[in-house]
Amino acid sequence: MDKVVVELEERSYPIYFDYEGFDRVGDLIKKHVRSSKTFVITDSNVYPLYFEKIEESLKKSGFDVTHEVIPAGETSKTMEMAQRLLEVAYDSGLLRDSSIIALGGGVVGDIAGFVAATYMRGIDFIQIPTTLLAQVDSSVGGKVAVNLKKGKNIVGAFYQPKMVYIDISVLKTLDKREVLSGLAEVIKYGVIWDFDLFTYIEKNLEDILRLKEESLTHIVKRSCEIKAKIVSLDEKEENLRAILNFGHTIGHAIEALTGYEKYIHGEAVAIGMVYEARLAFNLGYIDEGYLERILNLIKRSGLPADYEGIEKTDMLNAIKLDKKMREGKINFVLPVGFGKVDIVSVKEEDVLKVLK
Amino acid sequence: MDKVVVELEERSYPIYFDYEGFDRVGDLIKKHVRSSKTFVITDSNVYPLYFEKIEESLKKSGFDVTHEVIPAGETSKTMEMAQRLLEVAYDSGLLRDSSIIALGGGVVGDIAGFVAATYMRGIDFIQIPTTLLAQVDSSVGGKVAVNLKKGKNIVGAFYQPKMVYIDISVLKTLDKREVLSGLAEVIKYGVIWDFDLFTYIEKNLEDILRLKEESLTHIVKRSCEIKAKIVSLDEKEENLRAILNFGHTIGHAIEALTGYEKYIHGEAVAIGMVYEARLAFNLGYIDEGYLERILNLIKRSGLPADYEGIEKTDMLNAIKLDKKMREGKINFVLPVGFGKVDIVSVKEEDVLKVLK
Repeated sequence: MDKVVVELEERSYPIYFDYEGFDRVGDLIKKHVRSSKTFVITDSNVYPLYFEKIEESLKKSGFDVTHEVIPAGETSKTMEMAQRLLEVAYDSGLLRDSSIIALGGGVVGDIAGFVAATYMRGIDFIQIPTTLLAQVDSSVGGKVAVNLKKGKNIVGAFYQPKMVYIDISVLKTLDKREVLSGLAEVIKYGVIWDFDLFTYIEKNLEDILRLKEESLTHIVKRSCEIKAKIVSLDEKEENLRAILNFGHTIGHAIEALTGYEKYIHGEAVAIGMVYEARLAFNLGYIDEGYLERILNLIKRSGLPADYEGIEKTDMLNAIKLDKKMREGKINFVLPVGFGKVDIVSVKEEDVLKVLK
Repeated sequence: MDKVVVELEERSYPIYFDYEGFDRVGDLIKKHVRSSKTFVITDSNVYPLYFEKIEESLKKSGFDVTHEVIPAGETSKTMEMAQRLLEVAYDSGLLRDSSIIALGGGVVGDIAGFVAATYMRGIDFIQIPTTLLAQVDSSVGGKVAVNLKKGKNIVGAFYQPKMVYIDISVLKTLDKREVLSGLAEVIKYGVIWDFDLFTYIEKNLEDILRLKEESLTHIVKRSCEIKAKIVSLDEKEENLRAILNFGHTIGHAIEALTGYEKYIHGEAVAIGMVYEARLAFNLGYIDEGYLERILNLIKRSGLPADYEGIEKTDMLNAIKLDKKMREGKINFVLPVGFGKVDIVSVKEEDVLKVLK
């Protein structure tokens, strides 16, 4: 089976790529955990699709399986829900050598990872991401978190999984909006790191949108390779890893100001990338041709390229509230060339100029 | 100033020992954190005694200080309280390079440490322990946690502070019961690691109980040296560190079965040490002379040596529920010689025999 390794010395772990392979998942997981006791956390969307199949594979491999289903959606990613899951873990008799499996998208991965990171000060954790967004982004790299009422991902940890299992065929069951949301992050990897990936998406967009196995496999694997590389160079976001936030500074502000309902994550990131690319153009970091290519690819793919109904000043305040902001300065990750970004300190007036 | 270093490579940190030195604490902390923004978490007992003095020292050193006072006592160590503190941190504008200072005993250190470990995935953390128990045990070694309703310290992390600041003179304001509670852990270090410390306590018990500076300083420093050594050898309790649980297996059961109210932690540990020493004697690991010395030292110090009103079978069930227990076997840390313990797998019937 194809794999990519996230290199982190004694905490290195593999990302496996499979296609319709859930019958093998139990045996694979068995190789990476210490005991046969496991707790699967999933959500109400994913449970009816895959839980039974995975439970069967786990049981066949000798696992004692508990599970809990949380309501699908970002509103589940709270301290209260984490507490409920921690109590279920304790009531089910999970011990220090037991494991937790996240089966679902980013929300499930984030909260299950937070539970795994904190239960008995950290137990084995496995990711089985079932959305494109989770496969190419949130399941890799060890960022786990829950939200506070006023702020997203404020409570969390850097906690690496023991393995990630990606079945690319599950993307066929996603609705188009979910696929596009993940594609926004793939486009992001092209802009920040690998312009070949960017041009691959330009050329193969129709195949990708038709969910052709070969194209999907290429973009998922390449995205994971890039993320794995960046994480292994800067696990705790002391410097380099921050480039993964391209599109996210404005994207997060859009999500926050629309109550995490109007736009799903990748949509907000797509709009954020357009605005941040425009900021880079205004400040002279990229030329108009490159700005147009980014804008066109986002539009062609069907992702939104603009937001509606947000006041300039609200947006600026939300950006300043974002946790990456430091006293006085507003840091942005801006494209400065093909497949290359820099972290740039931008004046408030320049931010205001690019906002509508 | 005297110090002991907890050796953990790039996460090594100093424990400073001072005597009436809070005027220096601001400058010391400044050397170990990245920004001047700090959040002091303390409790309703400690706040009126020391907060003002420490705030003054911090402000003189240029710190921007926020604080929050939690009700004193174990009942504050919940997920709900952690969430409240995390929300205060966020509302106060704490950033990734800000710090959290725990000013208080074990409860404050544990929950403030959990908040520091999880806020924005971990920010700088400083311990200023104000009880003997916290100075010799919980403030050193990075175990932070909150309780679930059904289990103590079930949710937490291994998260090392940037420094620990111990002012030994604060012990003069403790009531005797609190001092004895800490002394139980000091006796424990003597049994598990350093028999010279054990005999020192035997010989100098009166001076210690009279809180003579020289004796207190000796036992606090020596305890921290021992804990620092054990933690540096096995930070995440994969093997050696478990010996710190001598007296705690039965001690935790006593605490749980009496609702964490009748006995404070060190008292339960003292009783636990007596019972576990007796178990070691019954199983032939130590002779009667050594058993008597442990028992006598605990009695002479004024610590309780026996519990009341707990049924044998309830005790056994509580022991089995304790998180250190593995399927079938019950592991105990038992003395096997002067200053030496082993982890021993004990049959249920032998445990029952030692219980009354």
